[in-house]
Amino acid sequence: MIGPLEKLIQALKHLPGVGEKTATRYAFYLLNASPDETQELIRAIKDVKQTLRLCSACFHLTDADPCAICADERRDVTRLLVVETPLDLMAVEKTGSFRGVYHVLHGVLSPLDAIGPEDIRLAELLERVKAGTITEVVLALNPTVEGEATATYIGERLKEQSVKVSRIAYGIPIGGSLEYTDPLTLSRALENRKEL
Amino acid sequence: MIGPLEKLIQALKHLPGVGEKTATRYAFYLLNASPDETQELIRAIKDVKQTLRLCSACFHLTDADPCAICADERRDVTRLLVVETPLDLMAVEKTGSFRGVYHVLHGVLSPLDAIGPEDIRLAELLERVKAGTITEVVLALNPTVEGEATATYIGERLKEQSVKVSRIAYGIPIGGSLEYTDPLTLSRALENRKEL
Repeated sequence: MIGPLEKLIQALKHLPGVGEKTATRYAFYLLNASPDETQELIRAIKDVKQTLRLCSACFHLTDADPCAICADERRDVTRLLVVETPLDLMAVEKTGSFRGVYHVLHGVLSPLDAIGPEDIRLAELLERVKAGTITEVVLALNPTVEGEATATYIGERLKEQSVKVSRIAYGIPIGGSLEYTDPLTLSRALENRKEL
Repeated sequence: MIGPLEKLIQALKHLPGVGEKTATRYAFYLLNASPDETQELIRAIKDVKQTLRLCSACFHLTDADPCAICADERRDVTRLLVVETPLDLMAVEKTGSFRGVYHVLHGVLSPLDAIGPEDIRLAELLERVKAGTITEVVLALNPTVEGEATATYIGERLKEQSVKVSRIAYGIPIGGSLEYTDPLTLSRALENRKEL
């Protein structure tokens, strides 16, 4: 095997779900691609690494602080939707069914993995609700054991606040993930959210 | 969608067989990967683009000229195996069954795509055979219409040379089953039956 090609294949094998054959296909594609195209890819990787950080308000990924959603004055700041990851946020945003603002937890409570309330953006969520502008919190966590437990925990913690807490409806198949749910099912789940 | 992330997803979608979802997965992987890891990938892409060229003898991809195979004195230079692409060469090399040298055509004749003898490394092949060292040419082209036509064409062109020309066998793959073999392969396997 030729050194530089082998190194590229090894590097590409780090991508999720990519084995030797797929990495080889990608490597040959890149080898034969125009210099402009590979330059564009390299620039895009560098940009993502250098410019993306977390919004100081909602903790979504952004290249400007606050993020475009938090900075958008047309959004309803009284309604807050809580998700696990930026990908989940993007999935909800794609449905166009929610015009409030978001809060990204960056994880869920998982005692087995030693992830407690202080390991996710939970204190910041409680802080935002305490500030008083928010009147409704929609929990859009994944229907997993950890997601459910986290939703219940957040519901408990928000009980003393004068805020409506709801959870998106089942309709998302149990064991599935928000990221891969089709927009229609996801907007149905939003419509049918139930108060806790 | 966040600008830099969207740009990276678009760039990754150029990879063969990669759609929106896979590109998004890759983009998030790269976003969360260590700076060392992404740097390694970027360096590997640049290296491949900058250092790889074609061996002036066999036209295989290489970072040194002649390539490692052509430079290897233990290889049998009297036997030449002809392939379409560097990937095909690497597939043959991986078997360890061939200890001669190679010739990469970089394509096959395809009148429909306006690819004629002058568009592939055919003149160079005839030149190498004419030089006189080679006593056997093994054609390892893909069993497609174009591959067959190219093999026949090369066979014709080499007729006047005192060289043995053979073609790798087509038949049922080892571990395959008759039931699931397509009719064309099966009839080839029957035609090419060998007396025990």
